[in-house]
Amino acid sequence: MNEAEIKLKMREAIEQARLKNPLAPSVTNTVTQDFVANAQLASGGSAAMLYLPDECEAIAEIAPAVYINMGTTLPFYAETLPRMIRALAEHKTPWVLDPVGIGMSALRMELLRQMKNTPPTIIRGNASEIIAVARLWGLIDDESIGNVKGVDATDDVESAREAAIILARHINGAVAVSGAEDLITDGKLIAYSSGGSPLMTKITGSGCSLGGVMAVYLAVSDPFTAALTATAAFNAAGMFAASNTIAPASFKVAFLDALYENSTHVVVTNALRLEEV
Amino acid sequence: MNEAEIKLKMREAIEQARLKNPLAPSVTNTVTQDFVANAQLASGGSAAMLYLPDECEAIAEIAPAVYINMGTTLPFYAETLPRMIRALAEHKTPWVLDPVGIGMSALRMELLRQMKNTPPTIIRGNASEIIAVARLWGLIDDESIGNVKGVDATDDVESAREAAIILARHINGAVAVSGAEDLITDGKLIAYSSGGSPLMTKITGSGCSLGGVMAVYLAVSDPFTAALTATAAFNAAGMFAASNTIAPASFKVAFLDALYENSTHVVVTNALRLEEV
Amino acid sequence: MNEAEIKLKMREAIEQARLKNPLAPSVTNTVTQDFVANAQLASGGSAAMLYLPDECEAIAEIAPAVYINMGTTLPFYAETLPRMIRALAEHKTPWVLDPVGIGMSALRMELLRQMKNTPPTIIRGNASEIIAVARLWGLIDDESIGNVKGVDATDDVESAREAAIILARHINGAVAVSGAEDLITDGKLIAYSSGGSPLMTKITGSGCSLGGVMAVYLAVSDPFTAALTATAAFNAAGMFAASNTIAPASFKVAFLDALYENSTHVVVTNALRLEEV
Repeated sequence: MNEAEIKLKMREAIEQARLKNPLAPSVTNTVTQDFVANAQLASGGSAAMLYLPDECEAIAEIAPAVYINMGTTLPFYAETLPRMIRALAEHKTPWVLDPVGIGMSALRMELLRQMKNTPPTIIRGNASEIIAVARLWGLIDDESIGNVKGVDATDDVESAREAAIILARHINGAVAVSGAEDLITDGKLIAYSSGGSPLMTKITGSGCSLGGVMAVYLAVSDPFTAALTATAAFNAAGMFAASNTIAPASFKVAFLDALYENSTHVVVTNALRLEEV
Repeated sequence: MNEAEIKLKMREAIEQARLKNPLAPSVTNTVTQDFVANAQLASGGSAAMLYLPDECEAIAEIAPAVYINMGTTLPFYAETLPRMIRALAEHKTPWVLDPVGIGMSALRMELLRQMKNTPPTIIRGNASEIIAVARLWGLIDDESIGNVKGVDATDDVESAREAAIILARHINGAVAVSGAEDLITDGKLIAYSSGGSPLMTKITGSGCSLGGVMAVYLAVSDPFTAALTATAAFNAAGMFAASNTIAPASFKVAFLDALYENSTHVVVTNALRLEEV
Repeated sequence: MNEAEIKLKMREAIEQARLKNPLAPSVTNTVTQDFVANAQLASGGSAAMLYLPDECEAIAEIAPAVYINMGTTLPFYAETLPRMIRALAEHKTPWVLDPVGIGMSALRMELLRQMKNTPPTIIRGNASEIIAVARLWGLIDDESIGNVKGVDATDDVESAREAAIILARHINGAVAVSGAEDLITDGKLIAYSSGGSPLMTKITGSGCSLGGVMAVYLAVSDPFTAALTATAAFNAAGMFAASNTIAPASFKVAFLDALYENSTHVVVTNALRLEEV
């Protein structure tokens, strides 16, 4: 794909999401559910947050795409997530994984380990999280890279480049690494998307809501386009919001407004740089 | 009751809520708890969100009214909700049911089924949810109507008119169907309330917070008045907010502000149309 | 410590939090997690909300300070909290307790009871909650004082003065009583901090987020300074926000913005009155 083809696909993803209002249900952390749902609605999608094994299994069959964020892992997710992920695989429902909290808790690690063989379609995380997934799955073995501090990254995007490429190939999908400049790859092509604002790091859930919006676009598009379109939409909206506000709470309001008001044009023309792997 | 009598009761409900600051505790989904609580506070009430069987049982005895929203059903609600609902019935504590997620999960369906015989005082939902409750309880048998897609309605308000009337008579309370024009009935009289804004569907939790505010008014009023007053307050606040904002996040801020600043007059004079059943 | 020494310590706490960006993880209620996390970020800290026994145990070892809010108590907290609190004691990690919901539920009461012997470093609550903790731990025996209504206070700050002093001495830390004028004591000195706005009581989670920010400052300071600095920062931000807004949702946005924009000077010079016990 060349840049013009990519932009055409982005345009289609944005328009299809607004037209079809796809349901992109989530199993996600309790902290940022409101932000995730509102970002999904602002992008044209529809939201539902689930917990129980049987409701997750059922939704995995009928939803066009699903978002799974590991930030909150409740004890009964030992049953919820394996059943849901089996159903996602069985029905070939695409899904986005956000490995928040990787490194903490035996249950979260066991659930993430299992996903190696029934993998997500998109993995989104900060650099530290992407490196940690690649290492957990035995795809890279350099113990010296990757460092997760709570839920925030301590590595920069470029340090996760190799892990992202290897992971994207393994899952046969796309990997998105969030940072000052965001990296999205399908294992062959790398897209760098920029924009946003440092204030994005001062509001909780900007990463989670980005993952949720990737699921909305994944309901109407391919993994690479979905990950890139959501990232570009966030970067465009973040830049616009930062041009009008200088503090985090009013920035968040302006950001969600901008996500809703983003024209297709502004997203498609957001700063983009492509590289062959 | 004629229109003047209804409006007098609405006036009293609004003023009593602001005066008495009634606690209207909730068992409610994790996604929109912040919005529900803030809407309850803006309306003059007081909020508390509960989970455990014994705390729910205890609060059912002392609270003047309770809000139960089925959007999040955790495994241990198999104990929490039956104990709470038994206590609500025993102490004749009025409560609002929001059957979010009806159709999904064996546990949620079993819990909703049990409520037929210890029924809520108000049921609030979109058209699809109201039809689904009436069908679940065997009050209507037309399999061809009612269609729930995730947590959003796919039926219009008028299609739930019969289900709403039958349900209101069964529970001997009130049923509120949210939509472009909202329908509230006690089984004898139907009130249509209008206003609001299409942006209400672009923010998550506008239905949940409406249910929470109904519980605040139910603490100081009868079911029909409580359901209608909350609906009118939301419609007035939504219209006002939409006159000042065009995007969802700033709309939500303006909406909650307007709910707090609503004069009694503006709520009581919000567009209302009455019909005998 | 005299006033000048206290203000110097406050200055250092504010600057160190902004410089070091300390992680202050929480086990906290589901209602206000977003507000807690955003207030912690606005104050310079970093947030993570946890649930599972092993992740809480692990974080208790590495975090510089922790926030525990009892508002949501899930059944498996019977394991999570004792293991976490044992780890906090073992590693001498300071922590803030917010005894929200005290009086409700056998599990919450049992967990709070256990904390007497492995006590928090700071206890923050409204007057009713502080009195209830002192009584639960057998430190005061006057059954006639202290009255909790749901999650809101029904007693005034001054009525909790003795309980606060006794508790502060028992835990060898600090106790903060929130009210119209806030009281902070380490058992020897009492600081009264004022400012804020009545609108603080019209937004859910202002108390919880204050507790979360105390944990941020506790990561870089002593208990008395941390409790006082967070309180002064909230009072300064609340006053500023109230000078620009008159309704709760826009007040909340302005408040979080102000918390982020607060100069060290404005916090340190916020109205403060000291008394020897």
